[in-house]
Amino acid sequence: MKNNFTVLNFVNDELVFINQAKLPLIEEYITTDNVDRIAEAIERLEIRGAPAIGVAAAYALALSLKNNVDEKIFNSSYERLKTTRPTAVNLFWALNEIKSTYDKYKDDKNVYEKLIKRAVEIHNEDIRKCDAMAENGLIIFKKHSRVLTHCNAGALATSGNGTALNVIKKGFDEGLVDFVYVDETRPLFQGSRLTAFELDKAGIPFSIITDSTAAFLMQQKKIDLAVVGADRIASNGDSANKIGTYSVAVNCFYHNIPFYIAAPTTTIDKNCKSGEEIKIELRGKQEITHFKSEQITNENYDVYSPAFDVTPAKLITSIITDLSVYYPPYNF
Amino acid sequence: MKNNFTVLNFVNDELVFINQAKLPLIEEYITTDNVDRIAEAIERLEIRGAPAIGVAAAYALALSLKNNVDEKIFNSSYERLKTTRPTAVNLFWALNEIKSTYDKYKDDKNVYEKLIKRAVEIHNEDIRKCDAMAENGLIIFKKHSRVLTHCNAGALATSGNGTALNVIKKGFDEGLVDFVYVDETRPLFQGSRLTAFELDKAGIPFSIITDSTAAFLMQQKKIDLAVVGADRIASNGDSANKIGTYSVAVNCFYHNIPFYIAAPTTTIDKNCKSGEEIKIELRGKQEITHFKSEQITNENYDVYSPAFDVTPAKLITSIITDLSVYYPPYNF
Repeated sequence: MKNNFTVLNFVNDELVFINQAKLPLIEEYITTDNVDRIAEAIERLEIRGAPAIGVAAAYALALSLKNNVDEKIFNSSYERLKTTRPTAVNLFWALNEIKSTYDKYKDDKNVYEKLIKRAVEIHNEDIRKCDAMAENGLIIFKKHSRVLTHCNAGALATSGNGTALNVIKKGFDEGLVDFVYVDETRPLFQGSRLTAFELDKAGIPFSIITDSTAAFLMQQKKIDLAVVGADRIASNGDSANKIGTYSVAVNCFYHNIPFYIAAPTTTIDKNCKSGEEIKIELRGKQEITHFKSEQITNENYDVYSPAFDVTPAKLITSIITDLSVYYPPYNF
Repeated sequence: MKNNFTVLNFVNDELVFINQAKLPLIEEYITTDNVDRIAEAIERLEIRGAPAIGVAAAYALALSLKNNVDEKIFNSSYERLKTTRPTAVNLFWALNEIKSTYDKYKDDKNVYEKLIKRAVEIHNEDIRKCDAMAENGLIIFKKHSRVLTHCNAGALATSGNGTALNVIKKGFDEGLVDFVYVDETRPLFQGSRLTAFELDKAGIPFSIITDSTAAFLMQQKKIDLAVVGADRIASNGDSANKIGTYSVAVNCFYHNIPFYIAAPTTTIDKNCKSGEEIKIELRGKQEITHFKSEQITNENYDVYSPAFDVTPAKLITSIITDLSVYYPPYNF
């Protein structure tokens, strides 16, 4: 199924993107060819998700030559875009792809078109990977599957149709998925905000649950399988993903429910031997003590808020990528 | 340790209570001898927790005779208080205790004093039970215990020092508890609001975590035991408590961490054979889609929000009550 919303697209020499910071309450599309505006969008999480950030930055850097081929402007745009999200690997990779193309064609009168062509290729490659992953992932479903997912591994995190959520959408299109339970995903509610938005748009029946309700549903035999994305996969299969993923995996194990990871092969870090090498980012307390303008609890109280956890390979039934489906023991 | 805040108290013929609806942001005490004001406080969750509601209602009904012994006023006060929380068993029990006392002494010139005396007895009995439970519960701790708790089973839910949280406080007083991790407890944040307030007041070191972070802490070997309250315990030991408790119990089992229930004997329902007989209340979607004035997600999205779950007896290491500590197989 094609999404009937656009995460980002390149139309008439402008970038069109949905403002994710306002979802799902306001569905706002921004159309711009301004490099600074796109840089700001990445900084403000209006565009988020590593693959989506890479594609947007590639278009932005190419657009810096749209009106005027000027090396000084190109270089300053490159530097500006590089500072938007200092830890996003896809961002640097995509910017450097456009820079290499520039270095190769800078004396060509069609250099702008060459850069756009390369950005489109990067975009299409992301779309292709998302769809290949969904195709590969179909084998996890039986008829009438009721699926649990956590956080957002959907179109909104990629420039294609998503990772884990694209697998679910494909399963629904093929008549195999009946229902999806969506963990709201504290503290930032990516589940109840973004995944719910995508499922609603795709016409897939779902319910939002609090994160701690998943175990209760498993006990009631209302969940047949869980599938989630990953932020980084170690060569032994240990997978880092949004905090709470590990709790889902433990509960799946206890209730004898299969637990799957779906991620592009670029998420596999062959230099990382195991989950123990993955450093876990700690978030600030504001996300726990406040919601927008409203205070939940006293801001002086201590908060411990890791952004990710690591699910050990032994709890992962299989890992679905754009290339293949992998089974334990994993050895990437 | 005595709490340095008062949940409810009877002083100079008036009821003094802390307004729990405003905690922890505002620590407001209400002093009143007005029956309607106390009835409203119960309705608005300014006074909450089954034992606390019962004690407050007992004082309120006794206070209806403070200025004037008038059977009509007594009866209408009884009816008014009965409608405040239609499902709270302790409420009806406490009101009927005061009514029986009234029927016995209604021709006695000291009938008001007799009713107050009975209300004080009910209050003292709750305090005694909380303290007996804490004393019995001490055996769950070794030195330097790091404890996980879920929801609020503290002084704020009783008119004494609490149930599970009183066990933890006692363990801290005896030098056995080093640190407490508090599940924030979605959707109503009783952990981050109320349990955090009580721990802060008691000077016990703690961190608030999202509910789905508990498993990650167990994996990191940062939790030695979990202890929670209960809303209803079946005769086979199956225990209903706040949604998310079951997920804590499963994670404790997987990580080989003891999981305890602490509750007064009045919570044990001998007529209930097993957890399967316990009906689970479903909450409205507003608690998931909004926080106070702020909207989290689209209010049209479907939400599934059970208020409680049932932890099977086999996952409960022991059940601590005011009478004794019980071990499996439970047979109440």
